Amino acid sequence: MNDYITEIDNALLSYLPQNEELCQSVIDAMKYSLTAGGKRIRPMLAIEFAKLCGGSLEAVMPFACAVEMVHTYSLIHDDLPCMDNDDLRRGKPTNHKVYGESTALLAGDGLLTLAFGTVTNAESLGRNGAEKCAEAVSVLAKCAGAVGMIGGQIIDLASENKRVSAKHLEIMDRKKTGALINAACQLGCISAGANSEQRKAAEDYAYHIGLAFQIVDDILDVTSDTETLGKPIGSDAENKKSTYVSLLGLDECRKLSARYTEAALSSLKTFQHFGGDTSNLEEFAVFLRDRKK
Amino acid sequence: MNDYITEIDNALLSYLPQNEELCQSVIDAMKYSLTAGGKRIRPMLAIEFAKLCGGSLEAVMPFACAVEMVHTYSLIHDDLPCMDNDDLRRGKPTNHKVYGESTALLAGDGLLTLAFGTVTNAESLGRNGAEKCAEAVSVLAKCAGAVGMIGGQIIDLASENKRVSAKHLEIMDRKKTGALINAACQLGCISAGANSEQRKAAEDYAYHIGLAFQIVDDILDVTSDTETLGKPIGSDAENKKSTYVSLLGLDECRKLSARYTEAALSSLKTFQHFGGDTSNLEEFAVFLRDRKK
Repeated sequence: MNDYITEIDNALLSYLPQNEELCQSVIDAMKYSLTAGGKRIRPMLAIEFAKLCGGSLEAVMPFACAVEMVHTYSLIHDDLPCMDNDDLRRGKPTNHKVYGESTALLAGDGLLTLAFGTVTNAESLGRNGAEKCAEAVSVLAKCAGAVGMIGGQIIDLASENKRVSAKHLEIMDRKKTGALINAACQLGCISAGANSEQRKAAEDYAYHIGLAFQIVDDILDVTSDTETLGKPIGSDAENKKSTYVSLLGLDECRKLSARYTEAALSSLKTFQHFGGDTSNLEEFAVFLRDRKK
Repeated sequence: MNDYITEIDNALLSYLPQNEELCQSVIDAMKYSLTAGGKRIRPMLAIEFAKLCGGSLEAVMPFACAVEMVHTYSLIHDDLPCMDNDDLRRGKPTNHKVYGESTALLAGDGLLTLAFGTVTNAESLGRNGAEKCAEAVSVLAKCAGAVGMIGGQIIDLASENKRVSAKHLEIMDRKKTGALINAACQLGCISAGANSEQRKAAEDYAYHIGLAFQIVDDILDVTSDTETLGKPIGSDAENKKSTYVSLLGLDECRKLSARYTEAALSSLKTFQHFGGDTSNLEEFAVFLRDRKK
């Protein structure tokens, strides 16, 4: 899945406003987080699904970058003192530590705004380009908004120091991380003019890898060691956080992550029927399940 | 210009997500600020320009409401402790005073996101509905983004306790307040399929009333009294803020606000040539110039 990292990085930078003398500080802050070592999982998912549906890299790139901008803004705002109050992100000082809180707030706002502007780069979308843009904006707004990612963050805030059910955790994770992963897959499909069956299959894949990812996260927090994981283990228990492991136990969690990964792989059959090469997406699902950090 | 207040208020509420049990708190916070007594100037400008260009109320309403959502989010974030740290807005407690900082931050993010989703309500836009949506998203993103409104806020932050030039003030105000007023006028035009001459005239009107408004604001801060103005006078001098009055003097400011208002009125001639009724927009420009509070 790492084939397009350079193209994605270059495209992200190309969409940033250039040479705006008096506003340069907020553009610098936006650029800082946009280039702070993200793994580009969401843009790569968008690209993979676009290719599967017969689309081109040029056509999907604005959509892929828009999702990454939304992801990046959410991290900047999540790190702010009134949220998680984090000083470090991916080993680097968080945005507000470098630029100050007010600039970081505005940089997040700026990236969210730029994301939607970026979606409207329709030059390479071909026939029905405007329809694809409008649909992409609509899907991205829903997935990133108050019933999607932001809704998941609100549920997370309300769940702090509370024992909640596994069902509650799943609803939260489907929104908090699943919705934007789904947006990435959907926007890939939309850029390529996918049909509703393909859109549904992409949605199934997105939500199943999202949930498997989160369950494995909870498993590693109790079974890994700090050195391997690269962050302190046992933090969930320390924070009295309800996790899939604390609610369902390790065995059930291992079964569940395997089952969700199988479901994700199974959803790819829709594309295989038409001769699509799903190997990257298969590998990615298996990688998420088997990862040790 | 107050003809459509009820329609705007109802439409704004209709675009909010309904009955989302676990995410209700952020939706409540979004609703709180959206219904906190805004004057709906931007949606009304959008409606007036749509009507002038032959468009319908139904078609422009999603665009008009989208601009109001962007305006509302900017106020929520502006009031946060890391920005202006205001406890009151229009006589009511600010969003974070009622819902807490993290929910207020997310409510602002939610409104900005919802704004773009709302633009894509294209049912009533008729022919080229998708093209109009994509164009509206593009214009709104640019006007609200890092080279528009957010850029203006950054310039404002960087100008605190500094003596700056009148030219600098004008660049800041064109971005900070002018850009979103322009977005409102442009989106009105776009909803009605306006031509480039009409779009240019709307832009001229927007920037001139925006600047006249800001200059009158500075004049009132030294010539009014607290009772009439409804807020403390002399606050600019107290905050050592460069204003048009402190830089150019009262006389020059009065001349300038008159000149900008004339320019705004003059820009409406484009519409009058085609028999358009510009009386509401004329009255509004004159009202902004002559207001005592």
